[in-house]
Amino acid sequence: MATFLILGAGMMGSALAVPIADRGHTVRLVGTHLDEAIVQGLAKDGVHIKLKLALAEGAKGPIEPYSYADLARATEGVDAIAFGVSSAGIEWACRAIAPHLRPDIPLFMITKGLVAGGSLECLPDVVKSRLPAAVRDRVHPAAIAGPCIAGELARRVPTCVCLAGRDPATLDWIRDAIGTPYYHLFPTTDVAGAEASAALKNAYAMGIAFATGLHERAGGVAGSVAMHNLESAVMAQALLEMRAIVLALGGRATTVAGLAGAGDLDVTTNGGRTGRFGKLLGLGLSRPEAIERMEGATLECLEILAVMRGAIAGGTLPLSFEDLPLLAHMIDVALDGAPVDVPLGRFFARRLTEGP
Amino acid sequence: MATFLILGAGMMGSALAVPIADRGHTVRLVGTHLDEAIVQGLAKDGVHIKLKLALAEGAKGPIEPYSYADLARATEGVDAIAFGVSSAGIEWACRAIAPHLRPDIPLFMITKGLVAGGSLECLPDVVKSRLPAAVRDRVHPAAIAGPCIAGELARRVPTCVCLAGRDPATLDWIRDAIGTPYYHLFPTTDVAGAEASAALKNAYAMGIAFATGLHERAGGVAGSVAMHNLESAVMAQALLEMRAIVLALGGRATTVAGLAGAGDLDVTTNGGRTGRFGKLLGLGLSRPEAIERMEGATLECLEILAVMRGAIAGGTLPLSFEDLPLLAHMIDVALDGAPVDVPLGRFFARRLTEGP
Repeated sequence: MATFLILGAGMMGSALAVPIADRGHTVRLVGTHLDEAIVQGLAKDGVHIKLKLALAEGAKGPIEPYSYADLARATEGVDAIAFGVSSAGIEWACRAIAPHLRPDIPLFMITKGLVAGGSLECLPDVVKSRLPAAVRDRVHPAAIAGPCIAGELARRVPTCVCLAGRDPATLDWIRDAIGTPYYHLFPTTDVAGAEASAALKNAYAMGIAFATGLHERAGGVAGSVAMHNLESAVMAQALLEMRAIVLALGGRATTVAGLAGAGDLDVTTNGGRTGRFGKLLGLGLSRPEAIERMEGATLECLEILAVMRGAIAGGTLPLSFEDLPLLAHMIDVALDGAPVDVPLGRFFARRLTEGP
Repeated sequence: MATFLILGAGMMGSALAVPIADRGHTVRLVGTHLDEAIVQGLAKDGVHIKLKLALAEGAKGPIEPYSYADLARATEGVDAIAFGVSSAGIEWACRAIAPHLRPDIPLFMITKGLVAGGSLECLPDVVKSRLPAAVRDRVHPAAIAGPCIAGELARRVPTCVCLAGRDPATLDWIRDAIGTPYYHLFPTTDVAGAEASAALKNAYAMGIAFATGLHERAGGVAGSVAMHNLESAVMAQALLEMRAIVLALGGRATTVAGLAGAGDLDVTTNGGRTGRFGKLLGLGLSRPEAIERMEGATLECLEILAVMRGAIAGGTLPLSFEDLPLLAHMIDVALDGAPVDVPLGRFFARRLTEGP
């Protein structure tokens, strides 16, 4: 059995500890400076205050909580490292872990997405570039993507994710080490496709949720006759636009149709912050009003919309706003405060529906 | 303004009358022998007893109900014909309309799907083959596919559908004649892709609904922590299998990602018979118990699963049950009475995720 370090004790980082411990491994779960209350709770009675469950209950291996002050001690002799931080914490995590890395150590993360630089960079590549020169060529970061609500994984609900990275041997090692009968990891080398899908789904889930808000605003109640036709039309257009963007970035269309694309888009629409924010905009709240109602929750959709606006305007991406009318409308609404008025007539253009 | 005949006054045929009338056309809505009570209700007070609304209220053109006994009178001088019948009614509709057809008349239908013969035939081609020889070469049947709940279209909820046929000029004529600001038709010549997607979505929506039943069976209540991870994983696998089947039939992958595939799959999962049936199976009811609970509702999912089993076993389709583990499991459960036990470990094989 191996010893795994998970850096970040938020919902998803902690949920990941459950299948790893179920395989009999030892998990050292290290909180960031934001996770002190969580770590204290775990140390006190084993209950994760955000997941609202006894994290290690029923697990085969131990899950040991550590404060970030004890990071050096927690990293001693670990066999694999996972980042359980949000994209905002990635730079910090890379710096924190740098002194403790050794060549060939498996490194993976629940963090996913795109970073806008001169080009659109994928997080595993960003992480690699931040590693110490001495180990950089022999560490191959991998990222988990796909439909995974943390509260469900922590409760052992059957879950499938893809594991995207550039080194097949590393991916297979991770899959074989932490997969369980309820947690299935599917390796893929389509890093661009998985990471772009993972980032874009946050924005598009917001657009799909417009329909729920519009329906409620029109006086409708939840039911089988609502605005499902509109919702599903937006979902179809979302998948076609994601497909066009992923292909432009060199990714695969099957990745968009699979776990990282359609799967994660579906689960994000089923619940979560992004959908709630889109519904508020559909209800007719102004952009500032909707943001205020979200009470400080991180809105990844705003980040990725800003990244995409920059990439298209700056010519990083060989696509125009005309090619992507749903994305353009979401930018107008969520970044510039335009009212929701989904441009259905411009959807499903031949360049999307008859593309490769 | 033109005169449209709609043959079939069920929910979807009647809903289609609304946008057509809103364009100022005259709609003659002819019930089949199953629709007598609907036609009588419309004649009495204008209320459609199944859609539960005054069908012609607010429409620009008239919607005139006819009994099927008056079919000959109803067809006099019509400019276009729509079939509003289920696939079981298609042969009858072709015979009924045959004496009244003239060359070049636009003919379209809300019916969609595949028929198993020596090969898997698409309904527009089946209809064409059933037309009188004298007009056959000059009538180009088109089929509407995509996410459209009849009760929503009849209430003018924004709706996008695709219009699949082999003659672009006919498709453009229909789109231009009946499209409205809330009803958008997108022509496509990918008949195989649209029809196969439309048929398959019924089966796959059943499989996606297994998760809701499994969750309830395990004592869970609806909420953001349920079995959404499982549901979305099945959805992603469904799209990849639909994609493989559509490509094998000569259709386009973009059709599966778009309205006829992902869009219709999404709306079907959101409500409707197929989802209810899948949930009952997930709850652990036996096949006969689940069918009994559906109280005689048509279960298109059983029809398409039987068609697909025959096509794969008979070698009509260059795919094996091993290529399509979700389809194979749904056949085991819904046709052969096996218990639900979603084979996640066999999902997302490279032949699907790294395919063309």
